[in-house]
Amino acid sequence: MIYFENVNKIKFEGRDSKNPLSFKYYNPEEVVGGKTMEEHLRFGVSYWHTFTGDGGDPFGASTMVRPWNYYSKMDLAKARVEAAFEFFEKLNVPFFCFHDLDVAPEGNNLKETYENLDTITAMIKDYMKTSKTKLLWNTANAFTHPRFVHGAATSCNADVFAYAAAKVKKGLEIAIDLGAENYVFWGGREGYETLLNTDMKLELDNLARFYHMAVDYAKEIGYTGQFLIEPKPKEPTKHQYDFDVATAIAFLQTYDLQDHFKFNIEANHATLAGHAFEHELRVARINGMLGSVDANQGDTLLGWDTDEFPTDLYSTTLAMYEILKNDGLGKGGLNFDAKVRRASFEPEDLFYAHIAGMDSFAIGLKVAHKLIEDRVLDSFIEDRYRSFTEGIGLEVVEGKANFHTLEAYALQNDKIQNYSGRQEMLKAKINQYLLESFAKVTV
Amino acid sequence: MIYFENVNKIKFEGRDSKNPLSFKYYNPEEVVGGKTMEEHLRFGVSYWHTFTGDGGDPFGASTMVRPWNYYSKMDLAKARVEAAFEFFEKLNVPFFCFHDLDVAPEGNNLKETYENLDTITAMIKDYMKTSKTKLLWNTANAFTHPRFVHGAATSCNADVFAYAAAKVKKGLEIAIDLGAENYVFWGGREGYETLLNTDMKLELDNLARFYHMAVDYAKEIGYTGQFLIEPKPKEPTKHQYDFDVATAIAFLQTYDLQDHFKFNIEANHATLAGHAFEHELRVARINGMLGSVDANQGDTLLGWDTDEFPTDLYSTTLAMYEILKNDGLGKGGLNFDAKVRRASFEPEDLFYAHIAGMDSFAIGLKVAHKLIEDRVLDSFIEDRYRSFTEGIGLEVVEGKANFHTLEAYALQNDKIQNYSGRQEMLKAKINQYLLESFAKVTV
Amino acid sequence: MIYFENVNKIKFEGRDSKNPLSFKYYNPEEVVGGKTMEEHLRFGVSYWHTFTGDGGDPFGASTMVRPWNYYSKMDLAKARVEAAFEFFEKLNVPFFCFHDLDVAPEGNNLKETYENLDTITAMIKDYMKTSKTKLLWNTANAFTHPRFVHGAATSCNADVFAYAAAKVKKGLEIAIDLGAENYVFWGGREGYETLLNTDMKLELDNLARFYHMAVDYAKEIGYTGQFLIEPKPKEPTKHQYDFDVATAIAFLQTYDLQDHFKFNIEANHATLAGHAFEHELRVARINGMLGSVDANQGDTLLGWDTDEFPTDLYSTTLAMYEILKNDGLGKGGLNFDAKVRRASFEPEDLFYAHIAGMDSFAIGLKVAHKLIEDRVLDSFIEDRYRSFTEGIGLEVVEGKANFHTLEAYALQNDKIQNYSGRQEMLKAKINQYLLESFAKVTV
Amino acid sequence: MIYFENVNKIKFEGRDSKNPLSFKYYNPEEVVGGKTMEEHLRFGVSYWHTFTGDGGDPFGASTMVRPWNYYSKMDLAKARVEAAFEFFEKLNVPFFCFHDLDVAPEGNNLKETYENLDTITAMIKDYMKTSKTKLLWNTANAFTHPRFVHGAATSCNADVFAYAAAKVKKGLEIAIDLGAENYVFWGGREGYETLLNTDMKLELDNLARFYHMAVDYAKEIGYTGQFLIEPKPKEPTKHQYDFDVATAIAFLQTYDLQDHFKFNIEANHATLAGHAFEHELRVARINGMLGSVDANQGDTLLGWDTDEFPTDLYSTTLAMYEILKNDGLGKGGLNFDAKVRRASFEPEDLFYAHIAGMDSFAIGLKVAHKLIEDRVLDSFIEDRYRSFTEGIGLEVVEGKANFHTLEAYALQNDKIQNYSGRQEMLKAKINQYLLESFAKVTV
Repeated sequence: MIYFENVNKIKFEGRDSKNPLSFKYYNPEEVVGGKTMEEHLRFGVSYWHTFTGDGGDPFGASTMVRPWNYYSKMDLAKARVEAAFEFFEKLNVPFFCFHDLDVAPEGNNLKETYENLDTITAMIKDYMKTSKTKLLWNTANAFTHPRFVHGAATSCNADVFAYAAAKVKKGLEIAIDLGAENYVFWGGREGYETLLNTDMKLELDNLARFYHMAVDYAKEIGYTGQFLIEPKPKEPTKHQYDFDVATAIAFLQTYDLQDHFKFNIEANHATLAGHAFEHELRVARINGMLGSVDANQGDTLLGWDTDEFPTDLYSTTLAMYEILKNDGLGKGGLNFDAKVRRASFEPEDLFYAHIAGMDSFAIGLKVAHKLIEDRVLDSFIEDRYRSFTEGIGLEVVEGKANFHTLEAYALQNDKIQNYSGRQEMLKAKINQYLLESFAKVTV
Repeated sequence: MIYFENVNKIKFEGRDSKNPLSFKYYNPEEVVGGKTMEEHLRFGVSYWHTFTGDGGDPFGASTMVRPWNYYSKMDLAKARVEAAFEFFEKLNVPFFCFHDLDVAPEGNNLKETYENLDTITAMIKDYMKTSKTKLLWNTANAFTHPRFVHGAATSCNADVFAYAAAKVKKGLEIAIDLGAENYVFWGGREGYETLLNTDMKLELDNLARFYHMAVDYAKEIGYTGQFLIEPKPKEPTKHQYDFDVATAIAFLQTYDLQDHFKFNIEANHATLAGHAFEHELRVARINGMLGSVDANQGDTLLGWDTDEFPTDLYSTTLAMYEILKNDGLGKGGLNFDAKVRRASFEPEDLFYAHIAGMDSFAIGLKVAHKLIEDRVLDSFIEDRYRSFTEGIGLEVVEGKANFHTLEAYALQNDKIQNYSGRQEMLKAKINQYLLESFAKVTV
Repeated sequence: MIYFENVNKIKFEGRDSKNPLSFKYYNPEEVVGGKTMEEHLRFGVSYWHTFTGDGGDPFGASTMVRPWNYYSKMDLAKARVEAAFEFFEKLNVPFFCFHDLDVAPEGNNLKETYENLDTITAMIKDYMKTSKTKLLWNTANAFTHPRFVHGAATSCNADVFAYAAAKVKKGLEIAIDLGAENYVFWGGREGYETLLNTDMKLELDNLARFYHMAVDYAKEIGYTGQFLIEPKPKEPTKHQYDFDVATAIAFLQTYDLQDHFKFNIEANHATLAGHAFEHELRVARINGMLGSVDANQGDTLLGWDTDEFPTDLYSTTLAMYEILKNDGLGKGGLNFDAKVRRASFEPEDLFYAHIAGMDSFAIGLKVAHKLIEDRVLDSFIEDRYRSFTEGIGLEVVEGKANFHTLEAYALQNDKIQNYSGRQEMLKAKINQYLLESFAKVTV
Repeated sequence: MIYFENVNKIKFEGRDSKNPLSFKYYNPEEVVGGKTMEEHLRFGVSYWHTFTGDGGDPFGASTMVRPWNYYSKMDLAKARVEAAFEFFEKLNVPFFCFHDLDVAPEGNNLKETYENLDTITAMIKDYMKTSKTKLLWNTANAFTHPRFVHGAATSCNADVFAYAAAKVKKGLEIAIDLGAENYVFWGGREGYETLLNTDMKLELDNLARFYHMAVDYAKEIGYTGQFLIEPKPKEPTKHQYDFDVATAIAFLQTYDLQDHFKFNIEANHATLAGHAFEHELRVARINGMLGSVDANQGDTLLGWDTDEFPTDLYSTTLAMYEILKNDGLGKGGLNFDAKVRRASFEPEDLFYAHIAGMDSFAIGLKVAHKLIEDRVLDSFIEDRYRSFTEGIGLEVVEGKANFHTLEAYALQNDKIQNYSGRQEMLKAKINQYLLESFAKVTV
């Protein structure tokens, strides 16, 4: 069956194309700095938003018009697989991502749930044989079912801890089976609603125990994909333990887990935590823990996770800047953890939205590459910190200074000359590169 | 000279007193759970807000009417010392805190600044001989002067790093001289305005180098007070490196500094970072790093640090709950990092405000003590997590479980029974304790 | 059938009662300032949260354990009516509120929906004959169904406008039939997602046309209840047209509707708009438009509508202060637009939560009454503004001053004496009244 | 004296210029849609940020290096005038704006303040004779001096009301003298710190009386400039009465002032109130009250007024879209109520920053013009609301429908067809226009 009848394969037609269902900036084969755009960007489609999401919100029922909604239960699950691979092919996207429950419905008991998963993952595996699209990461949904009302690995109920463990065990087996390059932990319910009823220490200890078991089991079964933690500060919980990258680093270090995990960083989670997207990417990068990206955007005037498709070119440029400085994302990629708006309910909107996101990151890639190539920021920063490459500054960096030598220096040298940080000039430069990186293409 | 002519020594007169300049709930000598209120609460007056602050804001000039404003420069500094000790005595407060620049003005060069400091700290030391009021902590102001425009220990300018080092060196010497029980680092400019011009990695490396030098120098001169880091997410910087407790723990662990520091936690900084005050206290407590408290409150509908005097009894109760669970603050205390509103500009307002704060924490202490004594939350939590004291839960806690045993358990046991978290009932209980803890006093 | 088997009728047992299912502060018959608590507080139960709500959230399925969930469709609707009146009686609550879809499911077409409504409202009417519980207000749900995806009265689709009109017409007929004292408009979808596709002027014009038609129809059928607008700034929309009280006043005045509407003010909507609850109540009050209250509370550290049961005694006290100053709410009441937390899923939690809310407002009533009786704030304010009761101030108020006379005055009188606003003292006074209003009861 | 020695007159050199001190996009003489860029944009320099601002913040002393700081008092005021006109000429800017205290220091009494103002405004008037730069608007600073601690027109102190009246009277006289095209009211202290001590009704009544007196006096002296209110929600007050455009419309209507005022809308004030900049412009526009713009930008992750120079091209594009739809700003203009960052303290930064802002608005103008010319949004919206141009929708718009006819229609027509809002496609279109509007220039 054809699910997206009105849509042909999306092609790169360039900036002058009037065809709304074409890439205008994302050309998978275009080489930027030695790698193709496809290799740089490693785009992924999120199964939950694209094939399972229904447009419902806390005040509204589902709106999405989806041809596969004709089916139900396992038939629905199978129809979604068919639709998904049609979509992947038409979008020409190299990766996808899923939670267990996105692809297969929960059964009447855990055994049935496993069986449902086995059926569907076998079908997916079959499709993958003839598809270019690979599995960027999978994960277990341990937040939707009411059993996780008090958390999963941090539940007050040991039975729930066990159940979550079983799900992640199965998830790791699926990861091997489908060749997932990463395995993600997002602790949607791993936090608290009120401290009044919460033993935070026990919950964090248990979370660490859980992660250690996952690491051990992966080793046991030979899973070599990268473990990723996805920080989010709140929602659905009042307070999530993986608040932001720094918080999660503290946790990993405290429990000696830091060598086994990197981060899957989501733009909208960053802003909910009070950080710019690029801040979180930078913090992960300088700690050697930038693993993958959930590419979306939020609305900073709203206080919840809107998961919009990324179209802000400042954000895509600064994100790609960090990613290029990181020498790419390694096994990770840019997964569109993004949903079409509730009012964009037609199937075609799924294409419009992904095209918008992919073009926006392609633009970001080229602008960021040019900024790096021309050393626009690098040379400014190099000059700005020059004092640490000589004299007293070099002594500081080399560990040869102490409070005595520094005080002696300061007493002789207290009329200090600083230089402007030039923020406005640098911002104008970013605008210029944004417009010029593309202007020059047309010549 | 008498500076507060209209105010006599503030005494505990009890809840029925009509005298607005009396303590109604704070009775320093009252014993609560084996210690006096004074021993529990260890109140401190902040020199900057109380004696140096002028009521100015970004849109307004100073408003504060202060009798010592008749003087200027070193005479002003001396008058403030006199006024301060009169204030301490009248308020009967056991501690105070200061930054170097609060007590002595900057000289024409660093040497003169040192001399000014020496003059004033000698005067303070002299006053302390006959005063009960001790120095809770001191610190160096490395954020006001324009030389710190790009940071202090994280400046791009090595000369500034050296200058800051000299100031902290002097600060540690003052700490020894005046017997300060703690030394605080608040990195008001240790952060960034824009990532476009920032080498975050070098700045954090330098910050760690700076702290290591401070630790080394303290050891060298035999300073045994507690080092404290005071997290704040932003303001004046766009982003401060010590964003919150968890972020600072990550930093301290990364640079092997965790054994030398605890935290000075401020209520208003917590809410600016998106956390409840009690959350930050809890995180510090379960990591064994709860050192001291900057007792104030913010306005969560405003986005800046309002530093109001603490009067919210929920906040003081939950803060004291964490502090009692921590077996107190050790060398730390409750420093009122709080300023009278710009419109509360009369000298008497300084007393009204401190009384409001001290009474509020005294109430919080008694309510929290009663909650603990009656095991209101403890027994609920004990019951809630009971599943981890037996069976599969105990195996998890004891490290005997793994994904195999947990899966086997879950497959047999997937109809899980959870119990209500009873948040509404617990909140009503807090209200009842708030009102009842005092009702019973009158009988 | 009995739905709440474990719960007996909730009675006032006073502050020392150990029975968690009792009122400790809310005594319906207690007279406060000439009226009983029941007359003052006019509590209402919201049908949607209490009988229809399921505990689902954007990341989780329903959690609520409800005995009536055994049924479905119209049988479920009938079971809910039975459960509701059992609940009202056990809680001894004088009012309830509902949207059409809370009580009866949507049919296959509008006619069937009407029939379902007729069946259920007849049943409700029957129950009301022997119940003390009356209908505070009803309304039409014009936000859940996907037809309202672009709005109802502000939809871009005229068919939707017509459909919404039909629903409100029916709603007004139900209001008459069941004797509803008010009719509420909450425009959950009356706003926009993006200005890029929005004709704001046409949408607002249409909204005004819609309200005028409602006013006309109410007049035609003789409905004399009060129309209420319930402001909310956002969620589910990016921007809702009835942002806050002031915005809605501007709208009503622009379209000459101000004489026909008052406001239903919700605490959590106020804080989402950046206002304190009492601010919104004050603005409505001084404009003579304070109609009713949705009594709940939010979490100002979260950016969405949490609809928690109100337990913050500062908030209930300051709300009751405005309500008492308004000479009560007239036809309005305190409707608990509040839901038990997702983790408070047991049926008993519905009682715990309502008791928590009712006791909290009872406390607020008594504290506010005492503050007014003792003229604590009134006398301070009277004194503070005294300058407008004499001399040049009186001339201003009486309209006798102009820029010439004021300038002449100012030129003679530019050394101005201001007095402290005493914010800290007043906050301490509120605390004292909070604790003392109850202390004195026990004597 | 030359104040900006290192800077020559800024010229349009086009996008390929490597000269950082040149306009790359803003070409005053370029015609866009029948008017020159200079006529469209009507840029203004704000005196306070550019010549008076010192870079201080709540935690830091002044940082700005300004050649005129050599002087003090009236000599400083005169030096600033000289520097200002040098700056205006070098920047080639058509307008400037000031508060009274920006240009002349307060004297020892009001009479002296008047004299200082007279001296400086005479000097300004003299400079204006040979300058192209005109006065966009002036205003009176009624927020800095401590006398305004409780407000100006809303002070509890009638003496302060009189003083503020005298200042505005003088301001209107200056407006006539210097030919100011507008007169602005920003009520920086017109709000409250706490409702506990506030008579909101009297304060708002007084504010209206004050505005009526201003209107009367302007009429008396023949001042025909436009009165503008500048909304801001908070800061420095806890709550400002002119919260946002809608709130101020409600106020103006309530007090019958709506015909005498338009709005001066600031981007950063909009976001502090929870609105997008373009939202506030739209609300003012559809009410016929869009008067002028304070062109800056905020940081939505920070909670205070950062007053950054506008560089976000989305914001400048959508702002110019509203302004073009308004047929321009009439007497208003784009005033840079923006300050260089504290760390951008060199005099050259004033030029970099203004160039960044002017280029950004020039780009926004061209993109917005192209969007309108191509009817990108107009045609989409026209189609989206088509149902209101025929049938039942037309009846609604023409006032011929009522609840009876609409219900009858809905009963026949309840299977409603909606269409996607296409938000993602429209956002991608904006990106395409942003990049293409400039690409095409180069051909």
